[in-house]
Amino acid sequence: MRADARRNYDKLIAATREVLAAGGDDVSLEEVARRAGVGIGTLYRRFPNRLALLEAVYREDVDTLVTSADTLVAEREPWDAFAEWLDRFVTYAATKKVLFHELIEAVGRDSELVTHSRQAVGAAADAVLDNAKAAGVVRADVASADVIRLVGGCTMMPGSDMAQRKRMLEIVLAGVRA
Amino acid sequence: MRADARRNYDKLIAATREVLAAGGDDVSLEEVARRAGVGIGTLYRRFPNRLALLEAVYREDVDTLVTSADTLVAEREPWDAFAEWLDRFVTYAATKKVLFHELIEAVGRDSELVTHSRQAVGAAADAVLDNAKAAGVVRADVASADVIRLVGGCTMMPGSDMAQRKRMLEIVLAGVRA
Repeated sequence: MRADARRNYDKLIAATREVLAAGGDDVSLEEVARRAGVGIGTLYRRFPNRLALLEAVYREDVDTLVTSADTLVAEREPWDAFAEWLDRFVTYAATKKVLFHELIEAVGRDSELVTHSRQAVGAAADAVLDNAKAAGVVRADVASADVIRLVGGCTMMPGSDMAQRKRMLEIVLAGVRA
Repeated sequence: MRADARRNYDKLIAATREVLAAGGDDVSLEEVARRAGVGIGTLYRRFPNRLALLEAVYREDVDTLVTSADTLVAEREPWDAFAEWLDRFVTYAATKKVLFHELIEAVGRDSELVTHSRQAVGAAADAVLDNAKAAGVVRADVASADVIRLVGGCTMMPGSDMAQRKRMLEIVLAGVRA
């Protein structure tokens, strides 16, 4: 991608996030282009429809979350890496909640997009959890799939706010600590 | 209700539970009548449509769960009462998952049925939790709404089985224990 195309791409993704965060399930492409300061024609050349835009945001979110697992394991103490990664997972899942319903409806629960993301996030969860178990700070009998489902489930329930999600995460962290 | 009407009512509710447990989102009234050994005319006189049947099952589930909180508090040690009530809540939420989608679509998230149930279950959760806190076996800073959402959220996520739900409940219990 050329540098100016990359800049527009990044601006459009950032603007889509703003619109999603502002609470709309209903992301209007015109609104995204306006916020990004990019012409609607430029938007349409890159993203032919809403779904393409939502999918790009989703893929970036997954990449960022997955990559951060390795960075955290390399740079932090095992417990802190595990706790911080789960905190990021909560933010990811809260964003995904808005995207997810529409994406799933369009591409299906067993699509490449969804299964690839599930596997990549699962592998990242394994990495931070195995590292914490090896250091003896998380109980050996805890499965990453259970932790992910527990934290993801409460996050994606309708009506919870970020403060409550963080309190629920604290309960889970206390529950798995060795 | 006359005794024979009550017997038919109970048989129809039990049969509806069987059909729901057998995995259908799609509860056929003919199937329910057949399993209950009750004529379809009798079923329709008591329950004019699917929704009336699902609502009756839902109300019974809520009543049973709510009543059990007082019984458990009276008869068990505070920690056991709390843990056992949450275990029953998991079973309740797993059943509700099947019912819930259709009920919510029909009656709305803010209907009397749903808000009454939410309040009654919340009050029951407060009762077992406050009792456990008073005995010093659950941390004082734990809110029952957080516990309910945490346990309910993971239970109602698609694709979890009962064994996983019980493992997740163990994590939550360990996380709130004083």
